[in-house]
Parts: sequence; C-alpha cells; structure tokens
Amino acid sequence: MLSVIDHVGVAVPEIEAALPFYRDVLGMALVHRETVADQGVDAALLDVGDGHVELIAPLGPETGVARFLERRGAGLHHVAYRVQDVEAALHALAAAGVRLIDERPRIGIRNSRVAFVHPASAAGVLTELVQPAEPH
Amino acid sequence: MLSVIDHVGVAVPEIEAALPFYRDVLGMALVHRETVADQGVDAALLDVGDGHVELIAPLGPETGVARFLERRGAGLHHVAYRVQDVEAALHALAAAGVRLIDERPRIGIRNSRVAFVHPASAAGVLTELVQPAEPH
Repeated sequence: MLSVIDHVGVAVPEIEAALPFYRDVLGMALVHRETVADQGVDAALLDVGDGHVELIAPLGPETGVARFLERRGAGLHHVAYRVQDVEAALHALAAAGVRLIDERPRIGIRNSRVAFVHPASAAGVLTELVQPAEPH
Repeated sequence: MLSVIDHVGVAVPEIEAALPFYRDVLGMALVHRETVADQGVDAALLDVGDGHVELIAPLGPETGVARFLERRGAGLHHVAYRVQDVEAALHALAAAGVRLIDERPRIGIRNSRVAFVHPASAAGVLTELVQPAEPH
C-alpha cells in the first residue's frame, strides 16, 4: 500500500527559527514554501533524499498545530507515507476498521492529495497518506 | 551530509499490540527484532521502501522510553537520517555548535553506528544519525 516515507512533519512556532539547523547545518535544500490554509499552517519543505522534512508553523492560536505546540512544544508532529492512490488506500484502511480523520482526500501541500489516519489507530502517531500531484 | 530518512521511531508500550496496524493493515514487512539493551528497548523494524518504521518498547520503568510514554503516551519518538560516515557528521555538527547527546557513535540496531542530536538543537526533535553496518 505504501511506497516510502514521504516526509516527517515538524511543528515549530516559527519556520525561520528552524531553518538554520535543517537548511544550514544539516544541509537540506529548502525547496518549497506554502501557506496551507486548510490545515492552518505555514509550511516549508526541505529535501532529504527522495523525502522531505516539512516544517509547519501555526497560522493562528486556534489551529491544531498551535494546540499541539501548547501541549507538547516543538517537535515531531506527523509522519507521511507516499501512496500511488490515496482513495484506494483509504478504502482499504476503512475496510480494516482503521479510524480515519479524513474519509476523503483533501488537497495538501504542492497540490498533493492527502488524508490523515487518526493516531488512535496508529500507535499514537498522526499518520498521513500523500499522493503527490506529479513526480518531484 | 544526510542521504535519506532512514526511519521513524515510534514508542509503544508493547510491540505486539502495534503490529496489527503496521504489519497487517499497512502491509510493512517485519524484518528484524532485537533487544537494544544500551537504549533500554525492545525494537522491531518494519520496511517501508528503503526506510523503516522502528517500533520501540521500554525494557523497564527507568528507561528513557518509559519516561517518554508516561509523559506523552505512545507516538513519534525520533527520526533517523542515514549518513555515510557518522563520525564525520558528528564532527560537522559539533563544529556548527549543535548540542549532541552522543559525542561519539554507539552501536545501534543491526550493528549500525548511531548518534543522537539533542532536541534542543533540532526544533524539538530527537534526531538520530545512523550509519548502517552494511547495505540492507
């Protein structure tokens, strides 16, 4: 069902403050910036091999990521696995009784189609399925 | 410095309880089990593409992972990036002023050489560098 780890999502108060470590020290190329209003975040993608680190910072205090930061502080927020067909993957997960946050895909960063699995079904891990819009 | 995301580490109270989701529903092959006494964990590696999910469960209540579970519950514990030369990577990080948990590599799962970067230097993320023992 899954091909690779597409990215890890890292919640931070401000993206700029996290770039010196990820971009400058670890040397990951900063390849994309986007405001993903639907998810209430500013996001930055940094390449590592074929995968990415996705830095996400809350757009406002009522967002899920702002609540995450309040509760836990900055750190690992989710992991995303790449799939060829996110709808087929969702059907298979639903059929297996997995609790889904998104019953249907929504548009994610870089026009990908994404859906989230509830942490209660995934050993506490907020788990994203991502079908890229095109090879990148 | 880094080549790919090698794995995400997921802390769980018991490995067996997490396998139905990762192995059976997501279809990741369970490729390795090991007790890593040095890190106080039982570990299981499941393949996803060229990377892995590493499930880790505490060997006892005084371990770091047991404390993590008490504080946060099950979930994402660390992310590991693959490097060709973990000592060279550590030297570069130290020279950049990054706070390290391990000044020198130690032996990790499957005889890899690993070192951890302190979350304080990595946007709150416990970050591991892993130099595999051999191609796998």
